[in-house]
Amino acid sequence: MKGKPDIDIIGAGNLAWSLAPALENAGFTVNYVYNRTPKRAKELARHLYQAESKTNLDFTTSRSSIFLVMVSDDALAEVAKELIVPLDAIVVHTSGSRPLNALAYTATPNIGVFYPLQTFSSKKIIDFREVPILIESENKYTREILIKLAKSLSNKVLKISSLQRKKVHLAAVFASNFSNNLLSIAENLLEQADLDFEILKPLIVETISKSLEIGPEFAQTGPAARGDLQILEDHVEML
Amino acid sequence: MKGKPDIDIIGAGNLAWSLAPALENAGFTVNYVYNRTPKRAKELARHLYQAESKTNLDFTTSRSSIFLVMVSDDALAEVAKELIVPLDAIVVHTSGSRPLNALAYTATPNIGVFYPLQTFSSKKIIDFREVPILIESENKYTREILIKLAKSLSNKVLKISSLQRKKVHLAAVFASNFSNNLLSIAENLLEQADLDFEILKPLIVETISKSLEIGPEFAQTGPAARGDLQILEDHVEML
Repeated sequence: MKGKPDIDIIGAGNLAWSLAPALENAGFTVNYVYNRTPKRAKELARHLYQAESKTNLDFTTSRSSIFLVMVSDDALAEVAKELIVPLDAIVVHTSGSRPLNALAYTATPNIGVFYPLQTFSSKKIIDFREVPILIESENKYTREILIKLAKSLSNKVLKISSLQRKKVHLAAVFASNFSNNLLSIAENLLEQADLDFEILKPLIVETISKSLEIGPEFAQTGPAARGDLQILEDHVEML
Repeated sequence: MKGKPDIDIIGAGNLAWSLAPALENAGFTVNYVYNRTPKRAKELARHLYQAESKTNLDFTTSRSSIFLVMVSDDALAEVAKELIVPLDAIVVHTSGSRPLNALAYTATPNIGVFYPLQTFSSKKIIDFREVPILIESENKYTREILIKLAKSLSNKVLKISSLQRKKVHLAAVFASNFSNNLLSIAENLLEQADLDFEILKPLIVETISKSLEIGPEFAQTGPAARGDLQILEDHVEML
């Protein structure tokens, strides 16, 4: 594969809205944006330099050689089944939790995972240089191209195994989803007490910055650190 | 009570190390610092302008009229039992979880709670202006003095009830201790995968800043938001 390979984007969700422009800024050409919902495909295509939108998964005539499947975990199997790509194309998904062989149906041996370790919003474009990108692949050819692609976007690129990805994704669920869920619980408790979530913000900011600075194990204070089971039990009872 | 009341500090832990200098900076005089361990009492007293250290709890001859009990939750009952203060002194504790009447033994009617909603470290002095201080008290006289004291330290002072404090403390445990605990679990998972905790930091920073910006309920993504129970079950099984 000489020069910069062209890339097609399958899925026009939050990740695609951050990743596709980052690819263009890094000098890659995006030819097609697929999305099941035509409107969403068109919106993202219009946001890019010269991409066209697409609502079917037959890419045989595309000039692209890398296909980034960025659909939801639940839609991945179905999309992979329908996806038709040029011979020897590289097809990757971006899921932390789905196996590499979720792409086995795509009839190319060059399958991989391109997993950006970050949370993406529709309202905020994320700077990819600071996003760790974890690369997994079926063969060396695919790996080398994916690592080159990832390095042109981010300063933190890592080759990982399926097992490592599974652990990283679980770590991310704990650190992100479950943490946010705890903050939701805290917000609800404050609402019950007729108090604003604002008053908890300095504590949250200090807790997280301390934890990132000295490490969560050393930062642990309060009931969990002191082993004060009675307080924990009282709390659980109160819930 | 005319002018600025003098204050004595009971307990020389992390909170005292931030609060006592903040009191001095706000123009209060600290006469005595008590700690069960003489060395720790001396260290903090030396750190202040003119305070003396003390290792017994008889304060009858102190010129102070406010006594801030900042010992651990486990030690509070015992300290309160031994504490002897001048007539009509104000005695407060700083615990989020202990009842107001933990101070009932102190033989003054003027008891209260002065609860700073923040986590304190030995290595880092916290700027009290940004620390919400929650005030609870047995009577109006005490409340007015405590609110005045708190307002001279912090921009965020709130009068609360016992029930509110219980809820706030529980919210703080969720938002701080349990959140940090989740980060510990995430760190362990990454260790198991031979990966550095560093790679998770951009995700953590983005998650928390999004949560604080738009509110945790709106920020919820991933399995918890999508209701993807299978992923959650897989995760729990993996643990």
